[in-house]
Amino acid sequence: MHIERLVIVGVGLIGGSLAAALRRAGVVKTIVGVGRSRENLAQAQSLGLIDASMPLAEAIAGADVIVLAVPVGAMTEIFPLLTKTSATITDVGSVKACVVADARAALGANARRFVPAHPIAGTEQSGAKAARADLFVDRQVILTPNADTDAASHARVGALWTAAGARLTEMDAATHDEIFALTSHLPHLLAYSLVNLLANARDIALPAGTDSLFDFAASGFRDFTRIAGSDPTMWRDICLANREPIAAGLKRYADSLAQLGAAVERGDATALHELFTVAKRARDAFARGAAA
Amino acid sequence: MHIERLVIVGVGLIGGSLAAALRRAGVVKTIVGVGRSRENLAQAQSLGLIDASMPLAEAIAGADVIVLAVPVGAMTEIFPLLTKTSATITDVGSVKACVVADARAALGANARRFVPAHPIAGTEQSGAKAARADLFVDRQVILTPNADTDAASHARVGALWTAAGARLTEMDAATHDEIFALTSHLPHLLAYSLVNLLANARDIALPAGTDSLFDFAASGFRDFTRIAGSDPTMWRDICLANREPIAAGLKRYADSLAQLGAAVERGDATALHELFTVAKRARDAFARGAAA
Repeated sequence: MHIERLVIVGVGLIGGSLAAALRRAGVVKTIVGVGRSRENLAQAQSLGLIDASMPLAEAIAGADVIVLAVPVGAMTEIFPLLTKTSATITDVGSVKACVVADARAALGANARRFVPAHPIAGTEQSGAKAARADLFVDRQVILTPNADTDAASHARVGALWTAAGARLTEMDAATHDEIFALTSHLPHLLAYSLVNLLANARDIALPAGTDSLFDFAASGFRDFTRIAGSDPTMWRDICLANREPIAAGLKRYADSLAQLGAAVERGDATALHELFTVAKRARDAFARGAAA
Repeated sequence: MHIERLVIVGVGLIGGSLAAALRRAGVVKTIVGVGRSRENLAQAQSLGLIDASMPLAEAIAGADVIVLAVPVGAMTEIFPLLTKTSATITDVGSVKACVVADARAALGANARRFVPAHPIAGTEQSGAKAARADLFVDRQVILTPNADTDAASHARVGALWTAAGARLTEMDAATHDEIFALTSHLPHLLAYSLVNLLANARDIALPAGTDSLFDFAASGFRDFTRIAGSDPTMWRDICLANREPIAAGLKRYADSLAQLGAAVERGDATALHELFTVAKRARDAFARGAAA
């Protein structure tokens, strides 16, 4: 695989890390960055992630591959500008069905060249300065092509992620969105909610000399809420783009929490022990698998 | 501060780490371990955490300080055996009001010598093998003495934790339980619930070649659910011992989650962005404070 000219729209953590990974793999000649923040683009260039930055219309001239690494909500503005390019187009969005629908509506015949992708990697950090060439090594990248996706584009996007060190999985966009509503979107919303609850619980009497409930939060809380440091714009967009699966996931969660709450209220030792044991077993198995 | 004979009932992560910390500080002559698992006690002795192990009745003869480092639910069996000792008695339970009530009911006049304590430290690991001499360094230990708590015992327990490297905070038991229901107990229950939800969501169609939703869980999920690997017996006991504050916390959380769910369903971009921004700001401030 070789890419003469790669355009990355949004040189943040994901876009910047992909640039770094492909450079390290030696599979790309020129990387052009596009973005709204001049400061971030200048930083990306000084870090050697991109060779140049320019407006989108200029950047895509002669491009082989265009990667949209912007929040899901920003893609609708970009697709209409990509109707004429002969490049392969891909994205890194955490939600797929709405992006596929937007691409189909806006790209016209070029929709066949759009190969939707979702790298399962990231941290709560953002910006080019957080980019790491090894971010995708041994991480999953989900591709959600359609039956009519152009075969050459499909193969190219697969090869690009493989070169970055990732493992490929394919599924349809709706399945993707339902799965990630539960495994990713739900934990983020739960963490944001807990932090808000603590920040807003001003009716709790605090001992003299302490400012907030956070003074009594320990390492468990720290890990549990790490993802509440994630970018609010990105997560607003994910919620808007994946409304139904997320709303269904929240209902499902509220039901399981209500069951647990009822067991606590009636002091049901057996039910509580069973719930915690099943969870610990599943979590321990996951930890073993994740470490393997 | 010097302790001639320290008895630790339950030489697990907390009890074992306290033994290691006090040994390192050079403030204790003899440490006697008491526990149900012979294997764990033998391991504690071979690790040098304790000098000897014996049944409780024998261990407390001549003891200066007795530390109850067993799950909250196990203390009710131990208190009735401590009515005759002249030692200072303390515990490490994550719930305080019920332990104070149990002590008052069972210890008689010796209840004045009981100084309730809660070290805010721990990992999801357990057993003497997980003990670390630095577990309490710069960690908070909450003491919840009463107005009638014996001053010498109070001072001794404070000095013991200070020698282990901890920072002391004092508050009443009810305030403690209300605060930790939100900052500690709630996140544990939320993590257990999410893992159970994923383990039980068998109606979600998975792509060929994958076994479970956990195949699509990433680092955010891993951190969020780390505490779901905690000991089920300990957490069952905490739920039973702190029923009302935990049930109230779950209701409070369900309300905030319902608000978030409504914002998702109506696609309220402004409300979602505001919720996430407030949470991120509070989480970032907490992270800075925790690092300081």
